[in-house]
Amino acid sequence: RINGQRLWDSLMEMGEIGGTEKGGCNRLAGTDLDKQARDLFCAWCEATGCEIKVDKFGNIFAKRPGINNELPSVATGSHLDTQPTGGKFDGVFGVLSGVEVLRTLHENNITTPTPIEVSVWTNEEGSRFQPAMQGSGVYVGRFDLQQELDKTDVNGLRLGDELARIGYLGEEELGSRNIGAFFEAHIEQGPILEDEEKRIGVVRLGQGIRWYNVEIQGQESHSGTTPMHLRKDAMVATGKIVAEIESLANRYDNGLGTVGFMQVYPNSRNTIPGNVKFSADLRNPNPDVLATMHEEFVAYCDAVAKERNLEITVDNFWYFAPVEFNASDDVKAATENLGYSHMDIYAGAGHDACYMADLVPAGMIFTPCENGISHNEIEYSSPEQCEDGANVLLHTMLTASKR
Amino acid sequence: RINGQRLWDSLMEMGEIGGTEKGGCNRLAGTDLDKQARDLFCAWCEATGCEIKVDKFGNIFAKRPGINNELPSVATGSHLDTQPTGGKFDGVFGVLSGVEVLRTLHENNITTPTPIEVSVWTNEEGSRFQPAMQGSGVYVGRFDLQQELDKTDVNGLRLGDELARIGYLGEEELGSRNIGAFFEAHIEQGPILEDEEKRIGVVRLGQGIRWYNVEIQGQESHSGTTPMHLRKDAMVATGKIVAEIESLANRYDNGLGTVGFMQVYPNSRNTIPGNVKFSADLRNPNPDVLATMHEEFVAYCDAVAKERNLEITVDNFWYFAPVEFNASDDVKAATENLGYSHMDIYAGAGHDACYMADLVPAGMIFTPCENGISHNEIEYSSPEQCEDGANVLLHTMLTASKR
Ligand SMILES: NC(=O)NCCC(=O)O
Ligand SMILES: NC(=O)NCCC(=O)O
Repeated sequence: RINGQRLWDSLMEMGEIGGTEKGGCNRLAGTDLDKQARDLFCAWCEATGCEIKVDKFGNIFAKRPGINNELPSVATGSHLDTQPTGGKFDGVFGVLSGVEVLRTLHENNITTPTPIEVSVWTNEEGSRFQPAMQGSGVYVGRFDLQQELDKTDVNGLRLGDELARIGYLGEEELGSRNIGAFFEAHIEQGPILEDEEKRIGVVRLGQGIRWYNVEIQGQESHSGTTPMHLRKDAMVATGKIVAEIESLANRYDNGLGTVGFMQVYPNSRNTIPGNVKFSADLRNPNPDVLATMHEEFVAYCDAVAKERNLEITVDNFWYFAPVEFNASDDVKAATENLGYSHMDIYAGAGHDACYMADLVPAGMIFTPCENGISHNEIEYSSPEQCEDGANVLLHTMLTASKR
Repeated sequence: RINGQRLWDSLMEMGEIGGTEKGGCNRLAGTDLDKQARDLFCAWCEATGCEIKVDKFGNIFAKRPGINNELPSVATGSHLDTQPTGGKFDGVFGVLSGVEVLRTLHENNITTPTPIEVSVWTNEEGSRFQPAMQGSGVYVGRFDLQQELDKTDVNGLRLGDELARIGYLGEEELGSRNIGAFFEAHIEQGPILEDEEKRIGVVRLGQGIRWYNVEIQGQESHSGTTPMHLRKDAMVATGKIVAEIESLANRYDNGLGTVGFMQVYPNSRNTIPGNVKFSADLRNPNPDVLATMHEEFVAYCDAVAKERNLEITVDNFWYFAPVEFNASDDVKAATENLGYSHMDIYAGAGHDACYMADLVPAGMIFTPCENGISHNEIEYSSPEQCEDGANVLLHTMLTASKR
């Protein structure tokens, strides 16, 4: 068994880096705070006898030798970056559960058949730079390394430069680790396990995600002198589309639709906005339904453009197809061996394990979180819930290492 | 007659201060560029023998002595600040027409019966600091001096500090000038004069304006894991209200409604926005209709708050009641004497003359502008149109000074 108190203390210590007044975290990818979190992770892993490597996209790998070091590692990992108003658990819980696995093996002098590896993936959140799960996506070859290093934030800062600045632009080639299986522990971020009173969610599927950049080009004009019928108001068109995204999501089982990001130009109260840029995020576990949602969304935007004589560009720059986790049964077996209540579940959020599933057998372990709230400073999982998840991770990895 | 070429050259010279690539101006109130524009104005006025005074809100007054300097001045003026994507004419045309009046009197050695005064009012645009017509509003006593000096921009910079920083926090008491009548020349900023092929608009009324700060408080949550029915999405509520403002304006004759400014928090694409702040601008020439629009707007916001379990605060922090210009006949007489075609018109925008009408007989002279477009970098009035307006201003002021 892992040490629940030690895991909790590490979660709290890590949570101080970028800690917010409301008890959450603001630790965006590639910032000084991200560096501090990475440094702390590396120090903790080195203390358990790991060798640390960083790849050319800033992904970190801490490897603990096994009996046969030619064998592929059994790996776990998640991310240390957070939302601007994020919690202390999203991502961090998975990484520190991995650290707790290392510590448990170390203090018990256990040498596993294969090496054990814990990774920290760059920019999983997709908040400062897009898309999400960027580090694991580049690692598995879904995205082009150079193109992703060249991505910029809203202030025009380049991710590659930021990684170099914080000392985490490494030498390892992408995809070059000898990994045999990947497991990720994560808080559920939704309300289902809590509602169903289950200790563990065995994640069977990661749902589909489509991310969009929408840009509406109208014409700036005076709010007090421009008759309604002569306007090319980019903001009203935006309002219509935002409202429609909700309706669209509600029309489909398990449909989700969100506009989280917006920039209004020139953002002056008596100038009719000439340009609005905003994000759209559509999700569904069923790829056919998501495809239909996509078509309806694009058609709606086109209709608004035509009706209002505006230019609207809808750039669906990221499509993440639903992924099935083919090592879920390992997670389920470990959970049952530990005697924890569990249920099958699907992941609403994207996770690094979803991309790792491209390369190796992969599985995910979900733990409940309070009221299902995540991407919020009040996000909370109890010490016991965290301990449960880390124990399942330990036993899943041990079993996989023995195979 | 004024010198049209000289007026045009001055407009172009002033337009270089904060000049944008698209030929417009970005010269927000209280910035270094505002200082440069003010300095140039002062230099031009001093060259015509004026004495310059600055009051405690940064309003500038250039006074040209008359035969009897105990008599109240006949004054004109407007503003030099612009929208972030503003034009070269809005406000500036009125100020420089005043300068052109001074120059014309000076070069012709005309001493008017009363003094002649040209003013530059602080922050007429209301873009960086609110409300609009702030300088003239403080001057006439509509707003409290200290309260307005304490207003901050989106970055928290205080207007009083900014005025001090650029050297335009003066000594004169507010409202202390000995002014007998006020006239303002301005581009129409709308399409009517052009459509009706009239050279001059005799402004009879300034329409009513209500400005709002709306804040919606929901709850941040994950875009991928939060079911639609559990969301407290501040952005969807915003979208509904933005769309409704258009419908509301369309329900009333001459109704206008605009959302020009918005701030989304935390502005991350996979976090459901927990807080959105935005502006609303409602206008109508009929105060009863504007009151009804106000009630419907507030009721709609309340209904959205109730239906969606959100906190919505609607702060109608500025109400500008429609104002009648009681010296319009002076403008009309001067226009007719010059033989220019004209029509009565109402002002869709607010103007400093609207507040000056509280204290003294006031009138406004409108000139056409291309396609009625203003608050846009492509705003344009021809040299001839500008010349017409300045000539009407000169003759209106001369007549008033003789009375
Ligand atoms: N786990 C998590 O919050 N990932 C962020 C990517 C997403 O938006 O789903
Ligand atoms: N003239 C002008 O554009 N004034 C700005 C104030 C308003 O919004 O009407």
